[in-house]
This record gives sequence, C-alpha cells and structure tokens, in this order.
Amino acid sequence: MAKVLIPLAEGFEEIEAVCLIDVLRRAKIEVVIAGVGAINIAGAHDIQIQTECLLSEIHSKDLDMILLPGGWGGTKAMADDPDVMRLLEEMDADKKLIGAICAAPFVLNKAGVLKYNYTCYPSVEEQIREEGYTQEHSVVTDDNIMTSRGPGTAICFGLAIVEKLKDTQTAEALKEGLLAEYC
Amino acid sequence: MAKVLIPLAEGFEEIEAVCLIDVLRRAKIEVVIAGVGAINIAGAHDIQIQTECLLSEIHSKDLDMILLPGGWGGTKAMADDPDVMRLLEEMDADKKLIGAICAAPFVLNKAGVLKYNYTCYPSVEEQIREEGYTQEHSVVTDDNIMTSRGPGTAICFGLAIVEKLKDTQTAEALKEGLLAEYC
Repeated sequence: MAKVLIPLAEGFEEIEAVCLIDVLRRAKIEVVIAGVGAINIAGAHDIQIQTECLLSEIHSKDLDMILLPGGWGGTKAMADDPDVMRLLEEMDADKKLIGAICAAPFVLNKAGVLKYNYTCYPSVEEQIREEGYTQEHSVVTDDNIMTSRGPGTAICFGLAIVEKLKDTQTAEALKEGLLAEYC
Repeated sequence: MAKVLIPLAEGFEEIEAVCLIDVLRRAKIEVVIAGVGAINIAGAHDIQIQTECLLSEIHSKDLDMILLPGGWGGTKAMADDPDVMRLLEEMDADKKLIGAICAAPFVLNKAGVLKYNYTCYPSVEEQIREEGYTQEHSVVTDDNIMTSRGPGTAICFGLAIVEKLKDTQTAEALKEGLLAEYC
C-alpha cells in the first residue's frame, strides 16, 4: 500500500488539505498527517486539525509521496522548516512523487525540486517563475512533480494522485462517488 | 454579522464540513463549530477536528442558520441527538435558515423540517422520500431549507449560502478566488 505524507503547518488551507487526505483515504492509500512544529494545527480559517505525529519524526525512506497543501501561512512555515526541506530533497533524490497545490509549489521551488512545467494559485507564479507556468490545467505533472491550483481543484488533484498511485478505474469510481464530474 | 452553527458528530464527512466552514468564513460569516457529545470529533476518514464548544451549550436564539454536513456516521449520530432535533425544530419554528448536505437531509426529515423540494446524496432519498427529490441541481432551496448533494458540491453549496446570507457579489468574488468556476 502506498504511503503519502501530508504535512500541516499553521495557516494551511483547510479545503485543500482535507480534500487531499479524504480522497486518498477513500482510495485506501495510507496517509500520514504530520504537524510542523506542533500536533494541533490551526488552518487559515481557524479550523483546528489534530495531526497524528510531528513532521520531525518522519523518515523519507518510509514514504512513497509527500504532498503539500497551500495557504500562504502554511506555505511560508513549510518553506522555513528544515525538515520539510530535507524531506523534499531526499524524496526528489530518490525520484519519489512530490505534490503541491495553491501557494505550496513555492516550497518545492525553494527546495530546488520543482521541474519545468507546473501550475499554482494565480499570481504565486510571480514568486516562482513565469516560465513553465500554466493555468490551462487543474493538475500538471512533470517527471515526479505534481502541482495543482487551489481549493476548487483540490478534489481533482486528489483524483489525479489516486490515478498515479493506484489506477484509472479506482479514480473514476471515486470521482463518481464524490459527485465531482467536473474533474 | 450572520451566525451559522455547524455541528460535527463522529463520522461526519470531512470535505463537506470543511468546505462549508472555510467558504462561509471567507465571506466573513461567523461560524460556530460545535461537537456532538465531545469536543474532539473524528470524521469518516479519521481526520480529527477540534470543535469550539459542545452542541449542548448552543441556543437557537443566537443563530441565523444551522448547517449539517453529511457522512452516514455523523448523520445517524445527529438524528439520534436530542439537542440537534430541538435546535432544528426551534430554528424552523422561527423561520430561520436550515441547511444539510449529502446524507444529512435525512436528519431534517426526521425532525419534520424538510420541505417538499430537496436534494441529497444519490440513494439517500430512498430513506427520505422520492417525491420532491431532484438530482438535477447541486443546491435546492425550498422556503427556509437549503439542501445539497455531496463532497463535490460542497463548495458550491457554501457559495449558495453566502449568496443567501450576504449577496451575489460576495459569492461571485469568492467563487473566483476559490477557482470553483464549475459552481
């Protein structure tokens, strides 16, 4: 069973984090929710989620993917966290999957793991790079890096990850069950 | 400022609850997250949310709307909870807004507050009534009762509530910011 780490740092975007965790768990993918600096983490809209462990306890060798929710507060906290940086570098060196949505591709860029083609929340590309950025697709995959745009694309991003880690049939069945025919 | 109560009971559907809280708070609507029977509540996909108070502490006179997320576990727990039933009856008697998504219209029906036209998660209508049920719309409003279908329609439901409690302009601006052009 694939194992995916989703770190939550204070100020994370709640719709993005929860859509990703929920959709992946519906697909029977193991998701570890880890707190950056604390166990109880408040999102950008003050929804408190109790994580399952501290990010500092996580080893990249146990993971198949690391997946970052957006929200500027959470994104900046992750970009400043040495454990997030180390995990991203190790996962990329091992050619493992890395995902980020909304503002969080900024963190991948800072860690030097973002590939050429990517997407992110509109205007965040100004703090990453214009080249290679597209807003034409909800999800962009380049090599081992998957990126997506924002709250409204989070379910679709989850389904694209399910397709990658499991198969198209599982993703299609989930899409129908979620009533997300727009993905 | 409008004040909306969102009760969480064990087994609630996390995407639905979090999309509704997040979208309403983006619109500067006051949202109270209250736990049914406990403060820390685990959702259907084992995401733990720390609520802000117990539902038993809430008085309907302080509220403008009560809004129920789905998930079968949470729905059944709410349908069995005397405080949920009492609040629904009081809100309806005062002609205040009541909303429910996915399986949760079942709770409104049990409390006797569901009006003729409604929607819900496909097949849940078999446990409510076929008459008046539609799957043609993401959101159905009949009198003071608003219903919606499932995780994939939760952002759109939140926007419809913003339009009702605030105005169309606020809802349209949020829709754009959320990248939810499919709503």
